[in-house]
Amino acid sequence: MLATVMHKAGDVRIETIPDAAIIYPTDAVIRITRACICGSDLWPYHDMQPDAVPGGRRMGHEAIGVVEAVGREVRRIKPGQLVLMPFAFSDGSCLFCDEGLNTSCEHGGFFGVGGKADGAQAEALRVPLADGTLYPLLVGEDDALMPSLLTLSDVMGTGHHAAVSARVTPGKPVAVIGDGAVGLCGVIAAKRLGAEQIIILGRHEARTALAREFGATDVVGERGEAAIERVRALTGGHGVHSVLECVGSEQAIAASLGIVRPGGAIGRVGVPHYGPQEVSGPVFYHNVTISGGPAPVRAYIDTLLPDIMEGLIEPGRVFDYTIGLGEVPEGYRAMDRREALKVMIRP
Amino acid sequence: MLATVMHKAGDVRIETIPDAAIIYPTDAVIRITRACICGSDLWPYHDMQPDAVPGGRRMGHEAIGVVEAVGREVRRIKPGQLVLMPFAFSDGSCLFCDEGLNTSCEHGGFFGVGGKADGAQAEALRVPLADGTLYPLLVGEDDALMPSLLTLSDVMGTGHHAAVSARVTPGKPVAVIGDGAVGLCGVIAAKRLGAEQIIILGRHEARTALAREFGATDVVGERGEAAIERVRALTGGHGVHSVLECVGSEQAIAASLGIVRPGGAIGRVGVPHYGPQEVSGPVFYHNVTISGGPAPVRAYIDTLLPDIMEGLIEPGRVFDYTIGLGEVPEGYRAMDRREALKVMIRP
Repeated sequence: MLATVMHKAGDVRIETIPDAAIIYPTDAVIRITRACICGSDLWPYHDMQPDAVPGGRRMGHEAIGVVEAVGREVRRIKPGQLVLMPFAFSDGSCLFCDEGLNTSCEHGGFFGVGGKADGAQAEALRVPLADGTLYPLLVGEDDALMPSLLTLSDVMGTGHHAAVSARVTPGKPVAVIGDGAVGLCGVIAAKRLGAEQIIILGRHEARTALAREFGATDVVGERGEAAIERVRALTGGHGVHSVLECVGSEQAIAASLGIVRPGGAIGRVGVPHYGPQEVSGPVFYHNVTISGGPAPVRAYIDTLLPDIMEGLIEPGRVFDYTIGLGEVPEGYRAMDRREALKVMIRP
Repeated sequence: MLATVMHKAGDVRIETIPDAAIIYPTDAVIRITRACICGSDLWPYHDMQPDAVPGGRRMGHEAIGVVEAVGREVRRIKPGQLVLMPFAFSDGSCLFCDEGLNTSCEHGGFFGVGGKADGAQAEALRVPLADGTLYPLLVGEDDALMPSLLTLSDVMGTGHHAAVSARVTPGKPVAVIGDGAVGLCGVIAAKRLGAEQIIILGRHEARTALAREFGATDVVGERGEAAIERVRALTGGHGVHSVLECVGSEQAIAASLGIVRPGGAIGRVGVPHYGPQEVSGPVFYHNVTISGGPAPVRAYIDTLLPDIMEGLIEPGRVFDYTIGLGEVPEGYRAMDRREALKVMIRP
């Protein structure tokens, strides 16, 4: 079968690999009907060392697919079902899964990072802990809602996690740092949770225009100190109650700390690429909360899916480029150049 | 009148200073009936540079007193009332006070730090923004509950803030770092909020014994890595859901980060004396929340006072040494040597 393999920074290939197959009795194998390229895939696309993962890293962690086979201990998931695959696999029954933190599952892990599971930018994939991980969808595999449903595997759940971690509260001002797919889903999430003033920090006009359609009330295109001053000016000088940090860069965390108001919270979901942070000064004296991490998107599906089914939110609008598996290397290039906001793959 | 003045590290004196008097129309003057020495007073007692505050720093930020005079714009507070004074003054009406974050009041500040207000280890004190700051008590000035009521000016409210910031939840394990008065009040607060397993990290036997009476279930006397291992062993290997960081040292924050479990929260109330912290690794990947800061104790009085009046909690038991104003220098020495847990001053 065909799958996406990253060998080093800038080197993504479609290769023929052995067919996905059941290994453990709790596995399922799914035929991928939709997958994505994620903003977080661009980090290794920039900095992966040659042979950091022997044989290359199998990419992709967001998918919808059809179950082709299940191991003998799989009870809930059945062959033929259309299923949503979150970016992390989890048993659904440990202490942390019980608390809704599937990304810290005692037996879990992540897809597409060169670990125990392979990647979803492929024709098929073995899914560990299928009963805990996969979420059956009650629609056809070409349903018009497919793009929005696909965002529940990562970006919409991640935007929601940023908003929850940043304690978005009705009537309190919010800022979203980053105009990528997660940032835009963060705008949707903030509005869904009752925010009225939603400031997006980003400078890509097509994206900030979409952010406005999703509910952003203000766009700040400045960077650094100028951005902090703009946000403060927009919020009576105080800064915002909730910051959704959806980038992960040194500049993004600095902006977050600069625009959060006393008693406010920063919900971090951008994979951090920054050094140690000063938390003894204003962060402490202003009672700022720093929260967030990898989103337990599996736990959020029950919350978000109904809003998609009812058409209340349309996160699938973040997809602006659809490709086949053979075009995945070009998809990486397009996202890296910011020509594509979010790439959907139809293997 | 007499007041406590710190000139430099280790140099605390009782001096005759001009009588406290109304300056602004929103001021009150109170005759101090009870004050305290705070663990946080020991930081400048260790490291204050000579003349860091011209003329010396007027110490003390916890008090109960009788109102002697009020300015012409004071409406709610009346001469003759017995009042509780939180460690921060606040207008009670700004955006942040409305949100219960009086320590970030737009017009507020702190007592006893060499700023706009003087200190409470004195015969009397001018209290800015009296209507927003002072809380009338409906008991006599020598009521038997006086020690517990006095803790609402700082340590009990601060322990409660640590517990709230650390998201103490019924049934979830808690650790309290520090066996000082705030740590012990943190134990009371955690138990009050429904925690069952409460682990205190401390090595002063009289204090950890009191912690057990307050509700601690386990005492960890080890330090550093050994302490982290003990807490993990006590919690099924995972660490605790809530860490109440009640010290502020480098060692205390390192222990906090070492014992918090995935999805857990650290509530920091110890004045931070530590450098930048690594928040990109496990803190992020385990969805750890870092929260806390100066406790808005003014906002917590309504919550905690009834439990004291009904005898449900007895935080006043942290006081183990009562002195007159003339003995304050000896009180500092006793607290510094850890001979006294918490000093009450009866001027």
